[in-house]
Amino acid sequence: MQSAQCGSKLAPPDLQDMTAAMPRLGSAIMVDTFSYETLYSEKSVDTPLNPGVHAKYDFAVAYPAPETLPLDGLIQSLQSAVDSDSTKVLAELAYYPHQLGALELREYTAQKLATDRGFTVTPDEIALTNGSGEALGLVIQALTNPGDVVLAEEFVYMGTTAQLRRFGADIRGMAMDEGGIIPEALDTQITALAAAGEKPKYIYVIPEHQNPMGSTVSAERRKAILAICHKHGLPILEDDCYVDLRFKGDVQPAFRALDDSGIVVYVASYSKLLAPGLRLGYFTASPELMRRALSFKLGSGPNQFAAIAIEGYLRNNLESHKDNFNPLLKAKCNSMTAALEEHFGSSGATWSAPEGGCYVWLTMPEGSDIASIRDEVFEQGVGYVAGTNFEADASGRIGHNSARLCFAFESVEKNAEGIALLAQLFKQHGAM
Amino acid sequence: MQSAQCGSKLAPPDLQDMTAAMPRLGSAIMVDTFSYETLYSEKSVDTPLNPGVHAKYDFAVAYPAPETLPLDGLIQSLQSAVDSDSTKVLAELAYYPHQLGALELREYTAQKLATDRGFTVTPDEIALTNGSGEALGLVIQALTNPGDVVLAEEFVYMGTTAQLRRFGADIRGMAMDEGGIIPEALDTQITALAAAGEKPKYIYVIPEHQNPMGSTVSAERRKAILAICHKHGLPILEDDCYVDLRFKGDVQPAFRALDDSGIVVYVASYSKLLAPGLRLGYFTASPELMRRALSFKLGSGPNQFAAIAIEGYLRNNLESHKDNFNPLLKAKCNSMTAALEEHFGSSGATWSAPEGGCYVWLTMPEGSDIASIRDEVFEQGVGYVAGTNFEADASGRIGHNSARLCFAFESVEKNAEGIALLAQLFKQHGAM
Repeated sequence: MQSAQCGSKLAPPDLQDMTAAMPRLGSAIMVDTFSYETLYSEKSVDTPLNPGVHAKYDFAVAYPAPETLPLDGLIQSLQSAVDSDSTKVLAELAYYPHQLGALELREYTAQKLATDRGFTVTPDEIALTNGSGEALGLVIQALTNPGDVVLAEEFVYMGTTAQLRRFGADIRGMAMDEGGIIPEALDTQITALAAAGEKPKYIYVIPEHQNPMGSTVSAERRKAILAICHKHGLPILEDDCYVDLRFKGDVQPAFRALDDSGIVVYVASYSKLLAPGLRLGYFTASPELMRRALSFKLGSGPNQFAAIAIEGYLRNNLESHKDNFNPLLKAKCNSMTAALEEHFGSSGATWSAPEGGCYVWLTMPEGSDIASIRDEVFEQGVGYVAGTNFEADASGRIGHNSARLCFAFESVEKNAEGIALLAQLFKQHGAM
Repeated sequence: MQSAQCGSKLAPPDLQDMTAAMPRLGSAIMVDTFSYETLYSEKSVDTPLNPGVHAKYDFAVAYPAPETLPLDGLIQSLQSAVDSDSTKVLAELAYYPHQLGALELREYTAQKLATDRGFTVTPDEIALTNGSGEALGLVIQALTNPGDVVLAEEFVYMGTTAQLRRFGADIRGMAMDEGGIIPEALDTQITALAAAGEKPKYIYVIPEHQNPMGSTVSAERRKAILAICHKHGLPILEDDCYVDLRFKGDVQPAFRALDDSGIVVYVASYSKLLAPGLRLGYFTASPELMRRALSFKLGSGPNQFAAIAIEGYLRNNLESHKDNFNPLLKAKCNSMTAALEEHFGSSGATWSAPEGGCYVWLTMPEGSDIASIRDEVFEQGVGYVAGTNFEADASGRIGHNSARLCFAFESVEKNAEGIALLAQLFKQHGAM
């Protein structure tokens, strides 16, 4: 219907009449800047966008090896899906995705979890999400009231702590050593908090190739932590997004594989294994918790286009992809740690010895401050994330002399060059 | 590091020691169901998942013509992007997307807005989102405090009203006629609300091919509404997601094209033009409002994979796609309205005469209740969404005798068959 045919109840008012009735507006409609000053919600914060700039040697990122990204394979998988059943693919794309996401990728994910992680869930117990970040945000919203105490590793992924804080969590750090969370310290901590009227609500843990420290929690510790969490009634939010990136040693069983009670919420991702730009993560949890978490979604399930490509590619190529991917990660890691040995060996610094994942955790001697010089070093060519950014409790007390170095993104050669430059810049700034 | 090499501070506790210390656990770790009863957040609601079932004649959906979905074209566009510069595509997928999303699609979107919608914004003033649903959710969070009065068309898209309610909005309906919002009634309403201490915060409007009513607001009315909103200091949240789906009559200028002051937040989508499963919408707003809205994102920008495919496809094929798409929409619409004329012509029912979009709005005579029989009619083969679902104020007062019928999804033939069956079922249930 055109406007000329409309207006049966009321004729459309003439603009000139309207502005004549409101003379103080004049031509201001199209010129003056409208002020939102009193209109923003109380919860909204004016947050600068990521400037999107990179250092010459970018060890600050969190990206896996881009050289291994199977672009042609993903596109061929899409084409194969269309060639084998275009009606089905059309139907998948033509509908709004179900809240759980594309069924085929959920079926594949259920198989992968059974094979690789040793636990059985049905495809309907898996929800695909826009990266694991969305999964974490949804679960956090379903479990967190403002003021709730939540436990996380004392140094931990800042994307999760940012979401925890946004939904009001009071985050406390869990003591760690090279083997991750220390069960006995955890038990003592929870007991003490409960005695002080601050019983924690749940714990968040990255048990394989922890971000940022690189540690993996052993099966024995996982069982002990599960026992402690059952004793105190605390769910475990397990973030397993690095599990596919192991190039040395043995994978440990998922918390979720050790426990069918529902106490474990399991979150993982295809972002690290394939490509962050695909935006596909997933989670599984007890049915009611899943429903409550999914009710916080803005819109429907994640993109079907990437889901079809991922499912087709991984179903046929997971092992060959890992055979290509993980040795390269290993070479990149070795290049970085060899350069650390060469340039930091006599400095009193220590660093982790990763068995997988993307990160080396560098600790300079006590008293050294590499957090305050981060921006200058970045400008001079080397990017890293200072330890202060990963402090669970944001106290600024323990992270000044540490940094996360991503070995997975730059080339073998650039890892070596960049670490040499980093040593030079630390000396220049009096940090070593 | 393997666990055997770890544990420098504390040896990993033995599980048997832990369970011995906690005898009441026994083997319960892996058997009993963990109870979340006291752990859910106060804001979380146990919401059933969409059952994902479809009626034989599904007029309840909101999907554009699946036959026109350019699957091969999208895949070829991806392949072309890789062939022409695989390093660039790799870099785009290997990084986490910027909060604004893929630059190329933002550049294309800026050009499309200038050409098709008559306003100029830079690519950095556009944020891509996981469908327009995410865009709406982010803006709503940046502008809404619990209890805020928000105005929306009296019948309006339930996805938006669900989000508005979730963030605490007190939604009031704006009076409409066949030409959409009635400006004079709006001015009167705002004045009366303000006098009662309930000044609205902003208005939400779908000005082209409104969902569910199909109306388009004329340029004259838009100017009048802008003048009213400036007078009262109310931003306009413009949802333009149907604008590309016009098969008759003239497109009207976007609110955003009539006003550069920042008062208009413009949201649109590629879901309807191409495919819902691609999950790509976008919005543009004044800079601070955009930053605040984006700070509510869970995770980074939307998937780059679909973005690259969409950009490549539309840059070369927008016009030919619309030349294929819109005539089919028109044929489907004509088939449905002809069947309504044939089977409902003497019933006292009226229906809208769409110039585009996806929906016919059917209004049965006053007193008829087609909302209460919806589930039975669905089971018997015809799906529709009852008018009560679209009531902005959820009063349940005005929608019992109306329904939204999607003409865009089923075939020309099924539209005719389904309407014939609908008439038969309405008679069977005493609704006509």
